[in-house]
Amino acid sequence: MKILILQEKIKKGLSIIERISSKSLTLPILNNVLISTEKSFLKLSTTDLEIGINWWSLAKIEKEGEIVIPSKLLLNFINLLPNKKINFIKKGDDLNIECDNYNTKIKGFSPEEFPIIPKIGKEEFISVKNMDFCKGLSQLVDIATPSTTRPEISGLYFNFKKDLITTAATDSFRLGEKTISLRGKGPIDKEYSLIIPQKTIKEVINIFSEKEGEMKIYFSPNQIMFESLMQETIHEEIQIISRLIEGEYPNYKEIIPKKFTTQLILNKEDFINQIKSAALFSGKVSEIKLKVNSAGKEVDILSQSIDIGDYKSSIPSKIKGNDLTISFNYRFLLDGLLNIKSSEVTLDLNGDSGPGVLRPVGDETYLYVVMPIKSS
Amino acid sequence: MKILILQEKIKKGLSIIERISSKSLTLPILNNVLISTEKSFLKLSTTDLEIGINWWSLAKIEKEGEIVIPSKLLLNFINLLPNKKINFIKKGDDLNIECDNYNTKIKGFSPEEFPIIPKIGKEEFISVKNMDFCKGLSQLVDIATPSTTRPEISGLYFNFKKDLITTAATDSFRLGEKTISLRGKGPIDKEYSLIIPQKTIKEVINIFSEKEGEMKIYFSPNQIMFESLMQETIHEEIQIISRLIEGEYPNYKEIIPKKFTTQLILNKEDFINQIKSAALFSGKVSEIKLKVNSAGKEVDILSQSIDIGDYKSSIPSKIKGNDLTISFNYRFLLDGLLNIKSSEVTLDLNGDSGPGVLRPVGDETYLYVVMPIKSS
Repeated sequence: MKILILQEKIKKGLSIIERISSKSLTLPILNNVLISTEKSFLKLSTTDLEIGINWWSLAKIEKEGEIVIPSKLLLNFINLLPNKKINFIKKGDDLNIECDNYNTKIKGFSPEEFPIIPKIGKEEFISVKNMDFCKGLSQLVDIATPSTTRPEISGLYFNFKKDLITTAATDSFRLGEKTISLRGKGPIDKEYSLIIPQKTIKEVINIFSEKEGEMKIYFSPNQIMFESLMQETIHEEIQIISRLIEGEYPNYKEIIPKKFTTQLILNKEDFINQIKSAALFSGKVSEIKLKVNSAGKEVDILSQSIDIGDYKSSIPSKIKGNDLTISFNYRFLLDGLLNIKSSEVTLDLNGDSGPGVLRPVGDETYLYVVMPIKSS
Repeated sequence: MKILILQEKIKKGLSIIERISSKSLTLPILNNVLISTEKSFLKLSTTDLEIGINWWSLAKIEKEGEIVIPSKLLLNFINLLPNKKINFIKKGDDLNIECDNYNTKIKGFSPEEFPIIPKIGKEEFISVKNMDFCKGLSQLVDIATPSTTRPEISGLYFNFKKDLITTAATDSFRLGEKTISLRGKGPIDKEYSLIIPQKTIKEVINIFSEKEGEMKIYFSPNQIMFESLMQETIHEEIQIISRLIEGEYPNYKEIIPKKFTTQLILNKEDFINQIKSAALFSGKVSEIKLKVNSAGKEVDILSQSIDIGDYKSSIPSKIKGNDLTISFNYRFLLDGLLNIKSSEVTLDLNGDSGPGVLRPVGDETYLYVVMPIKSS
């Protein structure tokens, strides 16, 4: 193997694929990157057995071949090199790297030991705009939570139907749902309902959220693939291939309330600030109270703890329905509000023990359901 | 006690003094700030028993008094308030805080429990420019190291003599020395040699490094005080009072070599980059080799580890004296280089086992002595 490539190109690729190579002690081969050649492309691959990433870039391939090299070491080393041509030459199981006045040999491993990243048939796919898709997912990706007893909810639920993507995440205390419309573009015939690991979605966001252009999503029974031709340099390509989570996602639609007994419309920033302040006084139970005062057209926010003191503030609100007092874990309220981009939010309440629903004002595509703390 | 003050003013003061209030479990009173009044000033004080900080700001004092309040809680809460007038009212041991639509009570403690921060007689002092002084100290503050067996070297050595400040720090593997000239301004009659705790110097840098203007340094047998009238708002004042470390500082001048067998002049950025690269291959001993090649007018930088591979790069150098090969702990070399601001550095070597000396080219006020790893 003999490859010539510019430092800034391979640096970019390594920084994308390195995150997936794990720090596995039981399977140290996963800490590595597989460097290989495909026609006139240099290819980098990493996997943690759940997710695999392939990255290609045009390069000068003087001799084909492949080698497996510690990915973190290679990234750190390449980062320090000047932006000049780098020569990668395989000698035995070692990789010689020559660049400017640097001349270095890294011990490698045999490519046979490296796990195979599955290939996915390229039959049906949909195209989504990178930024729209990632922005939508970032509104709920952090709600999912690792669970060994209920592996379904450690992933995000996706439903692909015609030109609409519906996605949801829950940790059983709160739930987010986001719909992303492809606006009639490239509708698919079949309907796909699947559960994608949270880590996969985090990587998709991490890699694609800042990139112009579109990605293609390919479906298969047990795997999903996100593939993009980068627009800024069409000589570069990325694939993320992930296993799906088996099982049935909870029928979450059932718990989204259709009605409310009280509806509040609040300035989001003020609400966030007051919840953060109240949180300081909420003690170990993280409990804050909302006291709806429709006569005063405001909502009081209250918290107290024996050790710390008492907190009270008030926020102006448009109010429909009944006055009530309701308790929430402030973290759950805050997470929902921080996922909302609009300047105003509605909060629908259903008595002091039914679920509350946060929605951005002027945006029908997002909702966040949060359970109150039952009054004792 | 009843005080009116603008949010941004007290926020600034709290962010300065809060860092010193410790997270002490054995003496929880130290986690607090003492709020008091002095004529038309609000005063905040914190201490960890080693360092004390006082901060004053003009405020509207409607009723005198003092109270002790958890400092972290108060800072976090004040940070979230709008930039409006805040009313602090003491009621019993509690502090009521009113601001805009916030109305809160924090449980406080009795001022009698709060440790007394010593006062220092204001006889002899010198004035230094904040930025010059802090920039100088930042070049060696991180070299000092906590040591229970040799408490002297857990502080920085200072010698104040006429218009010259000489300061040094060591951890016994390396040593930094910096001289700061007051250029004939305000020379003092007596000579003071003292050891100031590293933490104190870090706080002085933290608080004063970005501030225009000057600070005064006051001397007393067991304490030192740094005091500043801020120029941007002359209605604000800060004092840092610190205990000194007892004992005799090592006679460090003895170990600074007066001669060299080999002298290198190197581009600093390139040298740093190549050391960082070599470090990746240096294994657990952190050992890198410099091989001086005067015929080639360059220095090779080498490292290797059985697990990782071999590293070699070369850097152009002006070379005086003998060729040699010498080993260093890369961290110690790097720390010295990162403290140097000039674009070129000299490295004086004394055979393969004598101390090396780094100096900025064109700056006589700084030197950094580093011991090599003895060749085995």
